[in-house]
Amino acid sequence: MSKTAKPTALDIPMMDPLPEDTQRYFDICVEKLGMVPNVLKAYAIDEAKLNAFTALYNDLMLAPNGLSKLEREMIAVVVSAINKCFYCLVAHGAAVRQLSGDPKLGEMMVMNWRVAELDARQTAMLAFSEKMTMASCTIDESDRQGLRDVGFSDQDIWDIANVAGFYNMSNRVASATRMQPNDEYHAQAR
Amino acid sequence: MSKTAKPTALDIPMMDPLPEDTQRYFDICVEKLGMVPNVLKAYAIDEAKLNAFTALYNDLMLAPNGLSKLEREMIAVVVSAINKCFYCLVAHGAAVRQLSGDPKLGEMMVMNWRVAELDARQTAMLAFSEKMTMASCTIDESDRQGLRDVGFSDQDIWDIANVAGFYNMSNRVASATRMQPNDEYHAQAR
Amino acid sequence: MSKTAKPTALDIPMMDPLPEDTQRYFDICVEKLGMVPNVLKAYAIDEAKLNAFTALYNDLMLAPNGLSKLEREMIAVVVSAINKCFYCLVAHGAAVRQLSGDPKLGEMMVMNWRVAELDARQTAMLAFSEKMTMASCTIDESDRQGLRDVGFSDQDIWDIANVAGFYNMSNRVASATRMQPNDEYHAQAR
Amino acid sequence: MSKTAKPTALDIPMMDPLPEDTQRYFDICVEKLGMVPNVLKAYAIDEAKLNAFTALYNDLMLAPNGLSKLEREMIAVVVSAINKCFYCLVAHGAAVRQLSGDPKLGEMMVMNWRVAELDARQTAMLAFSEKMTMASCTIDESDRQGLRDVGFSDQDIWDIANVAGFYNMSNRVASATRMQPNDEYHAQAR
Amino acid sequence: MSKTAKPTALDIPMMDPLPEDTQRYFDICVEKLGMVPNVLKAYAIDEAKLNAFTALYNDLMLAPNGLSKLEREMIAVVVSAINKCFYCLVAHGAAVRQLSGDPKLGEMMVMNWRVAELDARQTAMLAFSEKMTMASCTIDESDRQGLRDVGFSDQDIWDIANVAGFYNMSNRVASATRMQPNDEYHAQAR
Amino acid sequence: MSKTAKPTALDIPMMDPLPEDTQRYFDICVEKLGMVPNVLKAYAIDEAKLNAFTALYNDLMLAPNGLSKLEREMIAVVVSAINKCFYCLVAHGAAVRQLSGDPKLGEMMVMNWRVAELDARQTAMLAFSEKMTMASCTIDESDRQGLRDVGFSDQDIWDIANVAGFYNMSNRVASATRMQPNDEYHAQAR
Repeated sequence: MSKTAKPTALDIPMMDPLPEDTQRYFDICVEKLGMVPNVLKAYAIDEAKLNAFTALYNDLMLAPNGLSKLEREMIAVVVSAINKCFYCLVAHGAAVRQLSGDPKLGEMMVMNWRVAELDARQTAMLAFSEKMTMASCTIDESDRQGLRDVGFSDQDIWDIANVAGFYNMSNRVASATRMQPNDEYHAQAR
Repeated sequence: MSKTAKPTALDIPMMDPLPEDTQRYFDICVEKLGMVPNVLKAYAIDEAKLNAFTALYNDLMLAPNGLSKLEREMIAVVVSAINKCFYCLVAHGAAVRQLSGDPKLGEMMVMNWRVAELDARQTAMLAFSEKMTMASCTIDESDRQGLRDVGFSDQDIWDIANVAGFYNMSNRVASATRMQPNDEYHAQAR
Repeated sequence: MSKTAKPTALDIPMMDPLPEDTQRYFDICVEKLGMVPNVLKAYAIDEAKLNAFTALYNDLMLAPNGLSKLEREMIAVVVSAINKCFYCLVAHGAAVRQLSGDPKLGEMMVMNWRVAELDARQTAMLAFSEKMTMASCTIDESDRQGLRDVGFSDQDIWDIANVAGFYNMSNRVASATRMQPNDEYHAQAR
Repeated sequence: MSKTAKPTALDIPMMDPLPEDTQRYFDICVEKLGMVPNVLKAYAIDEAKLNAFTALYNDLMLAPNGLSKLEREMIAVVVSAINKCFYCLVAHGAAVRQLSGDPKLGEMMVMNWRVAELDARQTAMLAFSEKMTMASCTIDESDRQGLRDVGFSDQDIWDIANVAGFYNMSNRVASATRMQPNDEYHAQAR
Repeated sequence: MSKTAKPTALDIPMMDPLPEDTQRYFDICVEKLGMVPNVLKAYAIDEAKLNAFTALYNDLMLAPNGLSKLEREMIAVVVSAINKCFYCLVAHGAAVRQLSGDPKLGEMMVMNWRVAELDARQTAMLAFSEKMTMASCTIDESDRQGLRDVGFSDQDIWDIANVAGFYNMSNRVASATRMQPNDEYHAQAR
Repeated sequence: MSKTAKPTALDIPMMDPLPEDTQRYFDICVEKLGMVPNVLKAYAIDEAKLNAFTALYNDLMLAPNGLSKLEREMIAVVVSAINKCFYCLVAHGAAVRQLSGDPKLGEMMVMNWRVAELDARQTAMLAFSEKMTMASCTIDESDRQGLRDVGFSDQDIWDIANVAGFYNMSNRVASATRMQPNDEYHAQAR
């Protein structure tokens, strides 16, 4: 994507020039990822919006907690598959392939996570995320207890719920605005 | 709710003592709203999580933009009605009643927004939010154009999408953790 | 609603003058409820239709049987919430608030009955009504036995089925004709 | 069905002896239909319940109005097909075959009414009944206008809505109680 | 159906003259069934297509295997009822009536197979076929084990899956092309 | 997959030795594709079953007709995405990547075909296939006319319907039996 291409179908100008902090953040992205993910360009229409999004994202996906980074990416992909969000399936599918070193696992998360025959912990985690996505109003104590039964703490349940919730937000924003994933993702970690 | 009652079904201790900034924020809530909304207590298990949540919430719901505060609350309730989120219906239903001065409007948003016979602008805004909630993967350019046709700018579309997206996150977090709304909401603005 | 306002979107004249029995019935409504519910005005286009409707309604909702009046109103609201019937949610939501003296219970029935954490009897009663509303063709002996297991007699099951069935009729008639609830309901028993 | 066989899965005794009026009504059924329909036996547990049901049924299905008796039976079958109610499909499918003299029409109503290629009037009538059954909360003025456009009066719309509503009630009562249709229906008018 | 009437809504000429083998096959149909089923006329636009279809059909429905012919027809009707395929419901509903000698069984399969109160083997077989039709991606080892538990071999499971799969194909082809069943079926075995 | 590994979760022995024709067919697969697709091994439990499957497959997917091979594979993937069939998404997703030389197109078909912004012909073709998969009973003449309007002949409509129908069969057989795709597909044409 060229510097001037729009990351979504909406015609909203990116901040220009970028604030210093934003420029530094984007430089780090290029250095580490080889690109600035389009979702960041999309939010870079306003500093408060970009910072609010990245603060939430970084806490949920990168801060140390009881879930591995791979597990959080697995939740991201399973939620995105239900919502059929092209942006998130491409970007986070690549993350699952990279973090796991298992391209087939990434494909399973995208296509039908139940074929993966995961262990009890990850199965419960993904089933909870799936139920949150499809029928959150039916979740009750037995669902939370099911997570505790396979070893998750109440803090872990909070974290699972917030990651699954987050992608139910970002999937919808991406689809509603036709956000386009960077082409670089497709060939990564195949 | 007493000071020690849990805001959700999860057993996670609130920060104790609260950081100074958080305490000040909660004091303002009590002063202005007569209570600390339980969603804030729920996130007050960790300063980074609370701040990320409130930064996003405040930008979306309170910062000046092309949508009125009432319109944003109407989106909140319509999304929450589809997801049947008790917490958000109670809290944001009260907000619609208060901001509009029309208790019946609040009930319509909760029960079936289509009976309200709104003008073309608000009808388009809520129909888009509904579609984002129920089938975001089917949104296409004609849906965005429909918003432009009733006067929304592309920046407004971004804001509508982000408000509707946000409640698709918070509805699910609230339902997944059995977050309880403060009792004070029920009688407000009836 | 003024005397001449239409109770639905249909242009059908009310009987004029009202038959003596109907006039007496409406006078009693005004005396006891402070209004004539619009559903009665809607059926008052024909004496046979009005009498058939009220005879069925009165037997189901008011005649002594194994269900309390509150329980029957709870079924009414839970069914109406699934069908998103504005008329019935407003009118019967008010009835739940009044009969229970618990405004929050009324809100829970409207918004998501499962958050109410009812006892086993009422949970089974509402789960059966919900299943009848959403997928009646899948009800089998185990569902009926589930009601017997929490103490309902076969006569009670008949009564639950007929109340739940009735609101699946009246919800649809109300929505199909745009029946408007009397404004008085909104503020009642808050 | 023998005199003592139960018409439903519920163990509730029929009135014994039958009230004089009920006995006369049942005698007429035997004379005209060759049987007492099991739905009447099911309601014959209580005189008020039976009379309320039959008064409503007779007004809707037999009293003169702007719909032919065949059209009302077609609505009955289309609604019952969506709800997969065995009792009503058997009994009213037979009625469509008899009233139309066209066995294939009865089968089409049971299996997929859209294959019948009906005229605009009956197509609109059944499409409205279908929408009332599947998503009544989405019906709006354009749906009612669609019926007016093919010649229905507002009184006719009321009647269509009440017939479609009625079978949404009786389908659910029949399925919830496992009501069994009389075997005589199966071979009728083939 | 006259020789020149089209078996579907598509305007594609039948092979003319028919290849010798096809003519012989059609002659046998007339001799044994009193008609050439329209599905065969529909595929008789091309010899390779007709032969591929009939080879698959004959292997699945007629070759000896662990399922009775009646059981295979029961699967056909249950799948077709979910897909609301008029052609297959008419043709295979007649087959269930004929093979079972029980017209009511045919009606039950068409209308709501669960009212039939079948034995454990046939209930498991039809529940598996139903799940394959409605949500095949959720089938797992417990579903297959459920079939083994009532006596089916792994070869039988293969055959059940292939019959249920086949009607999910042919239902869709028939509905998509408006394939019309021969009128002779309606009155058969009533 | 080693020679003795099972292609599905069912324990059914492959023909041993393979019939001469089958062995030749498998040898050609190895020569051309570098593997024997597991679906062929799965059907190689019986010569009649294997031949019926391959005859139908070869006619639909390989014989010359008005659809390009890529178009047929696009239908295969779109249908398989709705049914969430892991086997078919992997195998036919690879085919779309190979035939188109466009890895991103393959991902779009798997994840959400509507993001691909195809021309009117292919959009109509895939929308028809999608409707056939999700609600075939609602297809009517306007849907067929929609295909004619973008240039498809009635013969093409027959072919589209049969390809879409075929994957509604094979998706279900694959999911019901836990058919595993060959690992070779994952890295192909990335």
